[in-house]
Order: sequence, then C-alpha cells, then structure tokens
Amino acid sequence: MSELRKDPIIGRWVIISTERGKRPTEFTPAPAPSKVPGVDGGFCPFCLGNEDKTPPEIIAYRINGEKANETGWHIRVVPNKFPALKVEGRIDREGDGVYDKSNGIGAHEVIIESPDHTETLTTMPVSQFEEVLWAYRDRIVDLKKDMRLRYTLIFKNHGESAGATLEHTHSQLIALPIIPKRVVEELDGSLEYYNYKERCIFCDIIRQEIREGDRVVAENRDIIAVTPYAPKSPFEVWIMPKVHESNFENSCGSNRAGNRKEQMESLSRIFSDVLKRMDKVLGHPPYNFILHTAPLKESNLKHYHWHFEIIPKLVKTAGFEWGSGFYINPTPPEEAARFLRDAKV
Amino acid sequence: MSELRKDPIIGRWVIISTERGKRPTEFTPAPAPSKVPGVDGGFCPFCLGNEDKTPPEIIAYRINGEKANETGWHIRVVPNKFPALKVEGRIDREGDGVYDKSNGIGAHEVIIESPDHTETLTTMPVSQFEEVLWAYRDRIVDLKKDMRLRYTLIFKNHGESAGATLEHTHSQLIALPIIPKRVVEELDGSLEYYNYKERCIFCDIIRQEIREGDRVVAENRDIIAVTPYAPKSPFEVWIMPKVHESNFENSCGSNRAGNRKEQMESLSRIFSDVLKRMDKVLGHPPYNFILHTAPLKESNLKHYHWHFEIIPKLVKTAGFEWGSGFYINPTPPEEAARFLRDAKV
Repeated sequence: MSELRKDPIIGRWVIISTERGKRPTEFTPAPAPSKVPGVDGGFCPFCLGNEDKTPPEIIAYRINGEKANETGWHIRVVPNKFPALKVEGRIDREGDGVYDKSNGIGAHEVIIESPDHTETLTTMPVSQFEEVLWAYRDRIVDLKKDMRLRYTLIFKNHGESAGATLEHTHSQLIALPIIPKRVVEELDGSLEYYNYKERCIFCDIIRQEIREGDRVVAENRDIIAVTPYAPKSPFEVWIMPKVHESNFENSCGSNRAGNRKEQMESLSRIFSDVLKRMDKVLGHPPYNFILHTAPLKESNLKHYHWHFEIIPKLVKTAGFEWGSGFYINPTPPEEAARFLRDAKV
Repeated sequence: MSELRKDPIIGRWVIISTERGKRPTEFTPAPAPSKVPGVDGGFCPFCLGNEDKTPPEIIAYRINGEKANETGWHIRVVPNKFPALKVEGRIDREGDGVYDKSNGIGAHEVIIESPDHTETLTTMPVSQFEEVLWAYRDRIVDLKKDMRLRYTLIFKNHGESAGATLEHTHSQLIALPIIPKRVVEELDGSLEYYNYKERCIFCDIIRQEIREGDRVVAENRDIIAVTPYAPKSPFEVWIMPKVHESNFENSCGSNRAGNRKEQMESLSRIFSDVLKRMDKVLGHPPYNFILHTAPLKESNLKHYHWHFEIIPKLVKTAGFEWGSGFYINPTPPEEAARFLRDAKV
C-alpha cells in the first residue's frame, strides 16, 4: 500500500505509491487524449447510466430519491478507483533512521459534478454549481467524524495540462492524517498576525481590497473575488466570504435549510461568474482550484479564513519556482483584475 | 520597473513585472519552437560569433585571453536581455496597507554553457561541465560584494516544457535582496535539527544513505547523488558534498589552484553522470535543477549543507500540489535510484 513520507528538512509530506510504482517507460510518451463519449464512441465511467463502472457511491443527490448506484442523480461522489490512500486501518507512524513515515491511511474521492459528459462548471446552471459546493460541504462534515483524519483537501484539475485524466467534469477530495504544509504555513502566518494585531489578516485584506477596488474581480453581499496582491501565477483569483469564518463547512450553514443557505448561493454565483470571466478573457484555459479551510479538528478559529484559490495554467513554470518558493509573475494582479472585471459575460 | 511583493499570509515573495505586463492574449497560443541555427537558418544570440547580440558580458572564460565580447570563449555570462530585476538603484521597502513591497533591485544573468549550439550538459566533455560550475562559483563570489543582495538563485530549465525559452544550453542566475521562502524553510528546519541533535541533518542523511545504499544513484570520494526519501517528483535527485559545507562557493576552494579544486572535478563527474543516467532511463527528459546554498551574507553554517536538486519534468502536476504543498509521487525513490544506478552509460 501507499506510504506517507515526511521530508526531514522542511517537513513537507508526500504520498509515495509503493504498491504500483510507475516504471520509467510509463512516463513517456504521453497517453492519447481519451475519446469523447457519444461523439467518437469513447467510454466514460462518470456518465449517467454507467453507475456500475465506478466503486459504489458514497453520497449522491437525487431529486426523486431513486435507488443508490442507479440513474436519477445530479451529483455523485464515489471513491477514486485508483486511490492514493486506503480508508481502512490504523495509522502507524514510525521512524526510519533520520526519516519519518506513516502508512497511507486516508480517503480519496471523486465528486462527479454533472451526469452530463459535455457539461462544465461554466456551462452548467448556477444552481447545479451550488450543488457541487454542497457536496464539498457534506463530505467534509462526514469525514470530520473519522478521528484518524486531520485535513480534507478539495481540489479540481480542469483540462489535461492542469492534470485532469478524465474529461467528464469532476473534482477530487483527499482526506489526510496530516495537515498539508501550505495549510500549516497559512495557519501559522495568520496566527502570528492575529497575535500582533488582534484581527484576522484575511478580514484586513478584504477591507483593503474593497476600499482600493483595483484588485476586485467580482463581489456580492456575501462573497468577494480578488486577484491577490502577490500572486504566484498570472490571473490567479481568490474567492473569500466577507464575514469571518475559518471553516468552509460552517460558513454555509448547518444544513440547507439553515439561515446561511444564501451564502452558498452567493458563493456559487461569484464562483461561476469568475470562471466564466476567465474563459472569456483567457480563452477557456486549463485551471486548478483548491479549497483552503481549517483542519478537521479545529473550528471557529479567529485568525483563519477559508477561501478558494483558482490558478489558471498559463505559463510553463514549475521550473525553478518549484524548488525555490520564489515566483516571477509577468502580469500585475491589478491588470489581471481589470481584464476580468471588464469581460462581458 | 518590476516590483517585489510579499504574500502577507505565508511570507512568500514574488517578482511582478509591472513594466511590460503580459496581456491575456499573449498567453495563447503557444509560440512556435525556435529554429535551430545551422539547421534551418534560425538565429541564436548565444552562439559563437554573435557576441554583439547580447548585452556586454559580465565574465567569460577564454583560453588565450582574447578580447571581451569577441569570440574565443568557452563559457560566457551575460545580463538577461529581458531582466526580471534591475541592477542599479537603492532598495526601497515600503508598506502598502496590510501588504509589503520593494522595488525590483537585483541581478538576472545568463550563463551560456557552451559556444556550440548543438552541445548539451550531457554531450559536452566533463571538463566543460566543470567550467560551468566554476562560473556559478565565480558569480556568487562576485555578487557577495554587493551589500544590497542577500541570495543568489542559480537554476537551469532544460527543454521547452521545463520552461526553457532559448534552445542553446544555458543556466540562469537571479540575485535577490530577499531570501527565497524555500531557502528560509531549509535554514530554519536544519537549524532546529541542529539545536536538538548538534549534528547537520544533511550529514546525517548522507551517513544513512551510504549505510542503506538503496537510494544512492552515484558517488565518488567527494560527492554523493541520492534520490531523496520524500521526493516531490518521480526520479528527483539530490547531489551533495560528503564533507560538510554550507556555501557552494567555499566548498570548491578559494580559487582554482586551491586545495579543493578536486572537489569541483568530483562534482562535475557525478553531476554529468547523473544527467546521462536520466537521459538513458527517461529518454532525454526536460528537467530543472537548482542550487541550494547558504545566503550571501552567511558562511560556515554548522546546520546547513549546500546541494543541487534535479527534477525531471515527467508528470503534469502543478495542480493541487502547487496550492497545498502536498505531493503524490507515483515512483518510490528506491525504485528510481535502482533504475538510474543500473543504467549503462
């Protein structure tokens, strides 16, 4: 099974697939793009009617309460067929000389965002987009009950060059027994600011962005989308709730009938709008987005503020940037925001 | 001019090109690959005879002492024609509400590794590879004198998908008035270990790797190449000196006649060997390498140990990995090391 290993110098964790390691020849050449079902006869396990071609579903949203693993769904969450982590077992952390490792316990799930193979987040109705976000929330709430897990990483790779291996619109969820390094850094950094100022740094950022306006892409009553002040990528956008909340799952109400239901609606409207603007301005770019939220066992943190980070994949970087943590960005965020703001969508 | 901006949450710096920001249309479509000089008539400013097509050289190695900016060189270092940073000026750091910025002072140089357009690091003689490494050292020693600068980032992007924009073999150097985040993390992490154990963590790693052997790719008297225990990328390799030294420029002797001249020879032999093994096993992959060394104003650090990190570009990641600091690696480093070790080169 897989192994979690920790870099002993900077404390970053990686999943190592010890089970079915890729041999050198498997990296070259690039696989041919998958065929489009209904167009040229390719097969897609995520399409309506192919429910038996995925592992049994974890949750699904069905209007008329049809049976599990049959049709009638509009959102479906299934285990990843080739999971990076295994759900069953006890977490065994152990040393290995100077190193540290753990067995690969965790969850790896796929959120199928639509039953329709040709749909994307920018072509689907905003109401369907909202359902995707509810699925994120429901999975976090459920995984919280597993006391072995410490973090739920929710992300989307859209487009082949952003790492998507299946074309049918989907996001992924990886639940981990450790907290990813970047999240630890954000928690530490924002706590340091809070200890000094007694204010949430994200709230301060939102106030400044609203006041200055030149990095704002879109906003409504509940949600704001901005290009960050020091973006690692051109046209990077952050989406944040205006009211302070550290945990995504709490921001959106304890249930769909809750008094914060409107916030999820607001979020889906802004999120959909931002992706449409990116499509318009950048010509349907591949992109990644990641939900940054508090660890599973923490809530109501005064210093942390959940948000989504959207990174269109425009530049062939990942060169020295990967190894240095230092980035060169050819587009000032003020210009990127202006282009996105001015786009007619 | 460019601006250095700091992410207020995690403290990462980025260079923002405010001068000639890329417009959205400039990201698409991908530019056509440049023509190969001598083959199809393309023009290359790095080729022998085109010395007047680059900014005047900073240093060059010439056997017979020919004149600067004329032919006769075998290594040439020139300013980047489109520099990310400007050499002249005073560093002005200032606040911007909750944010921090600095003007873009620093150096951006190109190390032309061969006068021959068709040569690469794996086809050139090892003696020429050694000259490239001397150029790195000589530039660091020179830039140390500039009291405004704090770090010299030396890296190579090889192959278009690893970010190289010119085909002619070259590396780059960016000298910065700040210390890149990844270096700060390594310095902090290794200091913490030193404070606890009173040993350099890299020296401990080297001892363990030599004892266990399964992650060793190549070694000689002075230098060892290993696949790291928790690599972020498949077939990632680190090259380290066996004798403790925090600063690359010191490891290699105060000058070429010094008593450590052999170490540079040893390094070039191992480095060339590792790249040849990668070529053989992975079919001439694109790659990046980065020199990790102590900041310009520090030396003789007991806790830090310079090294090169080589990352072949095999997987389309940079997806959620970028945003999470968490990586999935499909190849255990023990397997990668075995493939590289067993390659016949």
